[in-house]
Amino acid sequence: MASRDLALATRATKDAALEAMALALEARADKILAANGDDVRRAKEAGTEAPMIDRLRLTPARVDGMAGGLRGLARLPDPVGEVVRGSTLANGLELRQVRVPFGVVGMIYEGRPNVTVDAAGICLKSGNAVLLRGSSSAVTSNAALVAILRDALSDAGLPSDVVQLVPADSRETVKELMRARGLVDVLVPRGGAGLISSVVEESTVPVIETGVGNCHVYVDAAADVDMALAIVLNAKTDRTGVCNAAESLLVHAGVADEFLPKAVHALQEAGVTIHGDAAFAAYDGVVPVTDDDHGREFLSLDISAAVVPDLDAALEHIRRYSTGHSEAIVSGDQAAVRRFVAEVDAAAILVNASTRFTDGGEFGFGAEIGISTQKLHARGPMGLTEMTSTKYVVTGNGHTR
Amino acid sequence: MASRDLALATRATKDAALEAMALALEARADKILAANGDDVRRAKEAGTEAPMIDRLRLTPARVDGMAGGLRGLARLPDPVGEVVRGSTLANGLELRQVRVPFGVVGMIYEGRPNVTVDAAGICLKSGNAVLLRGSSSAVTSNAALVAILRDALSDAGLPSDVVQLVPADSRETVKELMRARGLVDVLVPRGGAGLISSVVEESTVPVIETGVGNCHVYVDAAADVDMALAIVLNAKTDRTGVCNAAESLLVHAGVADEFLPKAVHALQEAGVTIHGDAAFAAYDGVVPVTDDDHGREFLSLDISAAVVPDLDAALEHIRRYSTGHSEAIVSGDQAAVRRFVAEVDAAAILVNASTRFTDGGEFGFGAEIGISTQKLHARGPMGLTEMTSTKYVVTGNGHTR
Repeated sequence: MASRDLALATRATKDAALEAMALALEARADKILAANGDDVRRAKEAGTEAPMIDRLRLTPARVDGMAGGLRGLARLPDPVGEVVRGSTLANGLELRQVRVPFGVVGMIYEGRPNVTVDAAGICLKSGNAVLLRGSSSAVTSNAALVAILRDALSDAGLPSDVVQLVPADSRETVKELMRARGLVDVLVPRGGAGLISSVVEESTVPVIETGVGNCHVYVDAAADVDMALAIVLNAKTDRTGVCNAAESLLVHAGVADEFLPKAVHALQEAGVTIHGDAAFAAYDGVVPVTDDDHGREFLSLDISAAVVPDLDAALEHIRRYSTGHSEAIVSGDQAAVRRFVAEVDAAAILVNASTRFTDGGEFGFGAEIGISTQKLHARGPMGLTEMTSTKYVVTGNGHTR
Repeated sequence: MASRDLALATRATKDAALEAMALALEARADKILAANGDDVRRAKEAGTEAPMIDRLRLTPARVDGMAGGLRGLARLPDPVGEVVRGSTLANGLELRQVRVPFGVVGMIYEGRPNVTVDAAGICLKSGNAVLLRGSSSAVTSNAALVAILRDALSDAGLPSDVVQLVPADSRETVKELMRARGLVDVLVPRGGAGLISSVVEESTVPVIETGVGNCHVYVDAAADVDMALAIVLNAKTDRTGVCNAAESLLVHAGVADEFLPKAVHALQEAGVTIHGDAAFAAYDGVVPVTDDDHGREFLSLDISAAVVPDLDAALEHIRRYSTGHSEAIVSGDQAAVRRFVAEVDAAAILVNASTRFTDGGEFGFGAEIGISTQKLHARGPMGLTEMTSTKYVVTGNGHTR
């Protein structure tokens, strides 16, 4: 089986394959762009909205970016074979816990064709075969990309079947992936909340849930107001369509009189619509907030906002509405920070820093397959390490109990 | 919520609670034994077989054992708060990955009432609230045990609700646990293959699969025959009803002439029924093996056995029938060992050692909630560490992207 050959491949073989894949993408960029042109044309004919078209569209620069991503993976250390834990037991047995690939990873994703190449590269480097189920809108682009990657794998001496495209012509192929327990070791759904929750509900294959982020920035009574302003603005406006963008602003009543006028002004200047409680709604242009808004991942230039009487109320609000992705506190008060860090239950807690830092690249992982918001196996940005399992190797010289 | 208070409890508080629980079990042993007597009487009236009755029965020594287990947990380090990974990023952000409890663990298990106390103790020490769904046969024992543990928790200043018994009067309560996504963070089923596969199939809560073990011992051409005999005997007969017992023996043809007569004799002396292929069946008393036998976890004094022409055939046989628990090789040939370790896909690979060593106690974990045979999150014996998740804490002084 292809996945077995890949699991046993050396780092040198895998890195050479990644370089071959990068070269092949560059050499056949015209073919990729032509295939992508077909997808884009079909999407336009179907009346798809402009931001979706932009996500779907490949350009020469984006193709170069994908090739660069593969070369970046080749430079990262191989997670496979790492000894995670090791000791000699009292009876002389040598115990080693060693990192190994999962085997076969299933990716179910929407939109962007670059995920096809990223996922293939990350899975290859971590020793996993991958089944790619992209969206039907990108079917022609994905077919071209995967054909090129498979040719390159073959040329590099690895079985081309370690990267396989799953037909995107019906929902049935997603269902088959979700029921392929024993054949697929782990499923990683990437996309909107609807896609992810349906996979979680229906899959018998273990799932790593990724990325819905209703991220809060809490401005404490002891916050440096200028720092808080900079963080809120960055977290909300640096990029809006990403899961680590801020979607909600909570302000301690003790700092509201000073902070609110500045924050409302700065956010509105940046084009943000504030959905605020009574305290915020006293300002021009602020829209009254609903309970739904507090729970919403806007992914746009909108933010929900409220003033809270104290830290306890902030913690309670976050407990109620958080999706467990990234939650930030801005405060100079050590006791408040300590409580926030201890009591907020999320993949990442940011102290005096923007929520935008929850990211595999920012964390120094070099690659990211998604951001896990579940607690099992991996929580937060998932790099190569998170795409592996372990096995114990126990070595004796005739040991019996 | 009780689980939150527990997650924030210090090691000192948790250890004091474990000691209080141990003392309470000892002080109220009579009550426990009386309640257990009711369960045993009901089981006998229902015509339950003797081995099942033995698993159900508590004795003064077994109650002492449970109390001792809780005290052992108190002596182990607290996994919560451990910094798993930490660095200062190029931009000065301090990144820490810190171990935190899951929150709420659901245990679904059969038979032995001691699992009730073990699971409560392990979850408590790892900072997790636990919902215990034992078998209906142990309902009176479990009710008595949980009542005593809850009183002790209360006395020790922790909310008694961190240990809760789920009614065992209908299958519905198992279904509720399996659908409690968002309320229960992880489910750990412990018991027979049927129980585990039904939980895996139906649960929307993340599951850690435990413990079905169709474990092989492969005796290589280059094996020391006496060592191989000792390991096979120990792996098969030390205890038969456990998941790390050997269920299958594979012998390289190159050593069969020397090994088979000795192995058949020694196993039969120890009361083992050999279900063998043609080579084995040439010996008196050996029963012809079926394909089903090769895949069977006997949990009794039975073993399937076959001669294989070479290492490749052994690897192929194990790939086909292994449950991914523990697989052993006996060999003095470094190249054969290296291939076996690399190519066999299981939680534990034992080299010149008995499969019986795959055990949290033997590995030095001090406690074990089960042995995971899945690849996600935890693989192999699960101790306190495996009952935790992590969160990232990112600390800056106004960092924005």
